[in-house]
Amino acid sequence: MSTPPSGEAPGLTWELIEAARERITGKVNLTPVLTSNTLDALTGARLSFKCENFQKGGAFKARGATNAVFALSEAQARRGVATHSSGNHGAALARAAALRGIRAYVVMPDNASQAKRAAVSRYGAEITGCAPTQAARESTVRQVLAATGATLVHPYDDLLVMAGQGTATVEFLQAVPQLDVLLCPIGGGGLLAGTAVAAKAIKPDIRVIGVEPAGADDAARSLHAGTIVPVETPDTIADGLRATIGPKPFAEIRRHVEEIITVSDAAIVRAMRQMWEVLKIVVEPSAAVPYAALFEATALRARRIGIIVSGGNLDLDHLPWSEANRG
Amino acid sequence: MSTPPSGEAPGLTWELIEAARERITGKVNLTPVLTSNTLDALTGARLSFKCENFQKGGAFKARGATNAVFALSEAQARRGVATHSSGNHGAALARAAALRGIRAYVVMPDNASQAKRAAVSRYGAEITGCAPTQAARESTVRQVLAATGATLVHPYDDLLVMAGQGTATVEFLQAVPQLDVLLCPIGGGGLLAGTAVAAKAIKPDIRVIGVEPAGADDAARSLHAGTIVPVETPDTIADGLRATIGPKPFAEIRRHVEEIITVSDAAIVRAMRQMWEVLKIVVEPSAAVPYAALFEATALRARRIGIIVSGGNLDLDHLPWSEANRG
Repeated sequence: MSTPPSGEAPGLTWELIEAARERITGKVNLTPVLTSNTLDALTGARLSFKCENFQKGGAFKARGATNAVFALSEAQARRGVATHSSGNHGAALARAAALRGIRAYVVMPDNASQAKRAAVSRYGAEITGCAPTQAARESTVRQVLAATGATLVHPYDDLLVMAGQGTATVEFLQAVPQLDVLLCPIGGGGLLAGTAVAAKAIKPDIRVIGVEPAGADDAARSLHAGTIVPVETPDTIADGLRATIGPKPFAEIRRHVEEIITVSDAAIVRAMRQMWEVLKIVVEPSAAVPYAALFEATALRARRIGIIVSGGNLDLDHLPWSEANRG
Repeated sequence: MSTPPSGEAPGLTWELIEAARERITGKVNLTPVLTSNTLDALTGARLSFKCENFQKGGAFKARGATNAVFALSEAQARRGVATHSSGNHGAALARAAALRGIRAYVVMPDNASQAKRAAVSRYGAEITGCAPTQAARESTVRQVLAATGATLVHPYDDLLVMAGQGTATVEFLQAVPQLDVLLCPIGGGGLLAGTAVAAKAIKPDIRVIGVEPAGADDAARSLHAGTIVPVETPDTIADGLRATIGPKPFAEIRRHVEEIITVSDAAIVRAMRQMWEVLKIVVEPSAAVPYAALFEATALRARRIGIIVSGGNLDLDHLPWSEANRG
């Protein structure tokens, strides 16, 4: 692993990931790896799928949130944890806090779905509503932190969270050590950063490739520009990948990630459907993004490819192919 | 295990199941067992799901077909195998025959879907069409057998097929030895017969319960009458369970199965949706039937229950809850 130049903030290390692994073992699932001769024949590659849709709460987010919560000192823990999230991270943090027996405060936009609110409140977290803007979310979280003394656990711009997400790759390479390439989706970048640092520490010659929707390609733009370039209005079916990459994940991705591939929404829906039909697993659109890269990236063929399947939380009443049928 | 009274035809034995296990190991998948705290809380039981939707071809049928094909003598094998099936068994037999390098002849009704024909023909089996009636299927198979000398491999009324299906339970009880009850769907009865004989041989005090749709309750009626009573026009969404129970499976079920539970189609759809949403697995309606029994059978609560999830092959364009939305 390369070391950051002196003067730069300390980044994600293998030691942080190893500590995360020890800390969360038994508190999250060791998820299975699936393979399929049919998908191998369709893509010309040898594929292994690390199924984080079978993780606690249905997404990899349980790893980072659990690591952050159990790394708190007793004094910090007494004051609880807080975050803003309309998605899987809020529920994962609520679950981890309940497991440790501490309070969780989750700021959610007033337009969040009933299902998402229920996933958070079933673990006893306190939900604070806010207007559905980034500014309102951040100012509301600041108020919560000031009022409670809770520790902020950011969904991705947090070294402990990134370290927790990296533990999926530790398990993956233990189960399938011969992988040549890892494909990982990019939202805020926490999963990709953890994946890349873990993978390069274990197997320095492995290739780590990030995959993102063409309509939310801030990571590709940012790597090209050398600085974070947000996409003003992300437009993609992969709702888990609309966030702008965070500074801490971005630093790791610049150091360790070889390439970013972008895929169309049509390819994402096709990939998702193939995974449902052939692997028989329920995955959300964001989780189909890495597999979608196989449809176009011919350089990936004939390689042993590991795919991180990020989650399986979606509304079964509104599947993309049914929408198309109705439209 | 009880022995059949003298004079009765020899039935399914533990020895046949053990031999099947040895014969098919490495040729079919050792499928995973999933658990869920959420479903345990919803049902008040401790559930384990044996996921045959992850089996080769997406259904348990690979087990029985592979056992029957690899049990053939060299002389038999040279003349191939034949069956009639519009569903998973035809594809499973075609795959097993391809694996042994022998011919397979599959009689399919002319109205079988393109997807089902493709699943059979991709393994190189020879498809013979016939009118979509039971009489036409049987007479066409007889013609094929006469012309080719192939061995008939019936989808369920065949001891080698039943023995192969029983191997899922051998794996299941190795993975989760503490189960009190097994729940298994009933179509032609091959899976339930194999399950019951295997389970009672390994753990004589385990309870084996068959579950079938209320609209195709021929097993319940037959057990009550003491003789096979077909349901003239089965009416259920569980298309894999519309067959009438076969004489060989029926004999085992009378000996070894404690109880048959019937469930409504509404319960089947609700069970299927919960399995998709919570377990994140794609299962066909027939495979949700045993879990549906948990909604009504209060005596099952607080028990350690093993559920055989039979398969995951269905048309993703026509999901029962989407149909309801459109209707």
